[in-house]
Amino acid sequence: MPESQQAAFGDPVPVLDKGAIQLLNMMGSDQEIIAAARVSTGTRAGADLQRDRDLIFFLAEHRHGTPFEHVVFQFYVRCPIFVARQWMRHRIASYNEASARYRVLKDEFYVPDRSALPDFITDEDIAEYQRVLEHAHQFYLRMIEKAKPHPQQRSRVREVFRGVIGTAIYTEFYWSVNLRSLWNFLELRTAPGAQYEIRQYAQALDNMVQQVVPIAYEALKRFGRA
Amino acid sequence: MPESQQAAFGDPVPVLDKGAIQLLNMMGSDQEIIAAARVSTGTRAGADLQRDRDLIFFLAEHRHGTPFEHVVFQFYVRCPIFVARQWMRHRIASYNEASARYRVLKDEFYVPDRSALPDFITDEDIAEYQRVLEHAHQFYLRMIEKAKPHPQQRSRVREVFRGVIGTAIYTEFYWSVNLRSLWNFLELRTAPGAQYEIRQYAQALDNMVQQVVPIAYEALKRFGRA
Amino acid sequence: MPESQQAAFGDPVPVLDKGAIQLLNMMGSDQEIIAAARVSTGTRAGADLQRDRDLIFFLAEHRHGTPFEHVVFQFYVRCPIFVARQWMRHRIASYNEASARYRVLKDEFYVPDRSALPDFITDEDIAEYQRVLEHAHQFYLRMIEKAKPHPQQRSRVREVFRGVIGTAIYTEFYWSVNLRSLWNFLELRTAPGAQYEIRQYAQALDNMVQQVVPIAYEALKRFGRA
Amino acid sequence: MPESQQAAFGDPVPVLDKGAIQLLNMMGSDQEIIAAARVSTGTRAGADLQRDRDLIFFLAEHRHGTPFEHVVFQFYVRCPIFVARQWMRHRIASYNEASARYRVLKDEFYVPDRSALPDFITDEDIAEYQRVLEHAHQFYLRMIEKAKPHPQQRSRVREVFRGVIGTAIYTEFYWSVNLRSLWNFLELRTAPGAQYEIRQYAQALDNMVQQVVPIAYEALKRFGRA
Repeated sequence: MPESQQAAFGDPVPVLDKGAIQLLNMMGSDQEIIAAARVSTGTRAGADLQRDRDLIFFLAEHRHGTPFEHVVFQFYVRCPIFVARQWMRHRIASYNEASARYRVLKDEFYVPDRSALPDFITDEDIAEYQRVLEHAHQFYLRMIEKAKPHPQQRSRVREVFRGVIGTAIYTEFYWSVNLRSLWNFLELRTAPGAQYEIRQYAQALDNMVQQVVPIAYEALKRFGRA
Repeated sequence: MPESQQAAFGDPVPVLDKGAIQLLNMMGSDQEIIAAARVSTGTRAGADLQRDRDLIFFLAEHRHGTPFEHVVFQFYVRCPIFVARQWMRHRIASYNEASARYRVLKDEFYVPDRSALPDFITDEDIAEYQRVLEHAHQFYLRMIEKAKPHPQQRSRVREVFRGVIGTAIYTEFYWSVNLRSLWNFLELRTAPGAQYEIRQYAQALDNMVQQVVPIAYEALKRFGRA
Repeated sequence: MPESQQAAFGDPVPVLDKGAIQLLNMMGSDQEIIAAARVSTGTRAGADLQRDRDLIFFLAEHRHGTPFEHVVFQFYVRCPIFVARQWMRHRIASYNEASARYRVLKDEFYVPDRSALPDFITDEDIAEYQRVLEHAHQFYLRMIEKAKPHPQQRSRVREVFRGVIGTAIYTEFYWSVNLRSLWNFLELRTAPGAQYEIRQYAQALDNMVQQVVPIAYEALKRFGRA
Repeated sequence: MPESQQAAFGDPVPVLDKGAIQLLNMMGSDQEIIAAARVSTGTRAGADLQRDRDLIFFLAEHRHGTPFEHVVFQFYVRCPIFVARQWMRHRIASYNEASARYRVLKDEFYVPDRSALPDFITDEDIAEYQRVLEHAHQFYLRMIEKAKPHPQQRSRVREVFRGVIGTAIYTEFYWSVNLRSLWNFLELRTAPGAQYEIRQYAQALDNMVQQVVPIAYEALKRFGRA
């Protein structure tokens, strides 16, 4: 693995107040994009870096998107449910998410930073936001507690009473996605119209992609899509 | 449209306490499945009903799934967010869901029927469940109210403070899906391991499918998958 | 069905020398795109045509592609195998193609028109092209004939000896595809870089789409993609 | 990478008379399937091998297919066009194939072994099969030659006159696919009803999968699908 790629692995990158994103695993690189494109034309990926680079730019410009699909990433993501809801609308990808049918939810809620809120929202408003979330979570825990003597019913109690808990609660999931589909995610979720919270994740992803496939990143940025 | 199909259209079918599912639109029928299969073999769909029926059973038995994809449905669905979260993990389909970034959420929450809950859950527990949900919704409405004088910020306030609202709140979406993908949904979501609430929707769907493509339904039931 | 839509159904549209494309079936219309978009914002599709039209243009401009997926088409296509090979690389769609494992192939070959060939290609070259294709087909038929007394082996002989037949032979298939995926096909296959033969099909499709979803067509043309 | 995995990489595995399949790249392993499943339940993949193994068997038995999607493979495939045509009907995968629009096709044809043919097919039949293919290829080369002085038209001549060449000609492509989609390929293409030629590729793939994800392989074999 090139040094530039190694930098992108390792510790999770923090996002929002308690979230994270981490590149766990990866298949392919700029070189594999070139190799996949070359199979079409029958010429070999040369030692000539300029020409390889040109080829990736050519692919992006002329919408030959399939070579970018041979680069695949696996990420670990920790984000609020309302962010995960937007995320999972991206269908060309694989997801495994923490299930509130099997796990008891912890009281880990997204609390927006003052800078991410309009001026007229006061500290007291934010404190009340937290109390409302915690109040619901405490009721949920009481129901979980009440089910303790009934092992057969615990799962049912978990799956029904999680319904009171706000979508500001953090969830976590594994996400496998190829570079082409990921690029579509970045285009839509780094755009100004995207919600602030998911934009923070998209920006962190954008930085990671730049590190691990620098030429493809530059080409896709210039032409806007794969 | 055959009479049997017409019966499946029309008014929404109620599901759970405030939910619904409605078949809005449809392309194809048992006949189109047969025609698609016949293009492979070059023989025409005969007047001989028995042989057409046999062909659909043959397709299901031998896992020739593609002819079932030419039947496509569009549904309107109204369900709790926690149900929608499970639903939208089915990726071979199209979704358009009500957005809490653009719309103010109404206090319409799923309240489970006593029969859907363990015996040790009391009426007081259910009343408290409702109070917790309404309490969060009232706080949310206060924040919405507070944003009224700030038209530029209303959207931001909506999208952040919906985070306190539990996933028991009802959402609604349009769902377009082909029969093969729908069958996969039915297999997984009518199974005993599926959550009670989504099973009620899957059961209602199962009934609709039986009405509109009766032969395909019978064949897929017998062989278990498309 | 509006009158404009009816015109697009009916007889197959001829393409190339012996090919065709036919709209067999359809779900949705411009109105369904609007309805799907309105479910997000909660406002109803108005009687105000201008505003509905504006909404579709807004969707195309801001890359809200999912409402376009609720319009679904089923086509019958007759084209040379080399065109079908390019066509079926479009993965978000359903295909059922004539199988040379089950059917004996007829000697129906694409013969390019003079105007579709460089000047230095002579009539004799085209005649030779046809003779080469027919020669191979005759050998194929001799092998089919040889297998007649061996019912158990006919299928094996068909599937092996079709290997001599050129990809200029016509095949046929059913194709179901939603408007968003179809638009991607049109963008790529009407482009000047696409092969002449598939461009003729893409152009015929483009005309059909314009008739059946005129507002969506105009909006997607303006902004280039769904 | 475990030793067992290394064995599956390396030289291409020969298939048919001139074909091959080669595992070029891979993401994930049995361990990643377990980790993806554990994120749902919140328990860690233990040192206890038996329990990890049990978990994979549980996933396969209960149709929890998504954890298998986090294992992704990239293969190089060299096969006759008629095999590639069947292969590329598998849509949940990425393909980059040699293009006869950009490359001049070489006279490399699949010639079936006697053992793969019925007894009544003679050596002379096979010789004639080869002559027919070569005859078409020679005509194709003459047209390529004729286009030499016309650089602007070479591509057009290549793309039209390849139409005479039989689908027994070898092509090559890169194929990226996740384990779940690959398993569906194996189920359908190792089945007795699949054509002999693609079965040879499926069998070679089956062996590779067994080496690189041995536990998942065993579990999927037992329960039949992912």
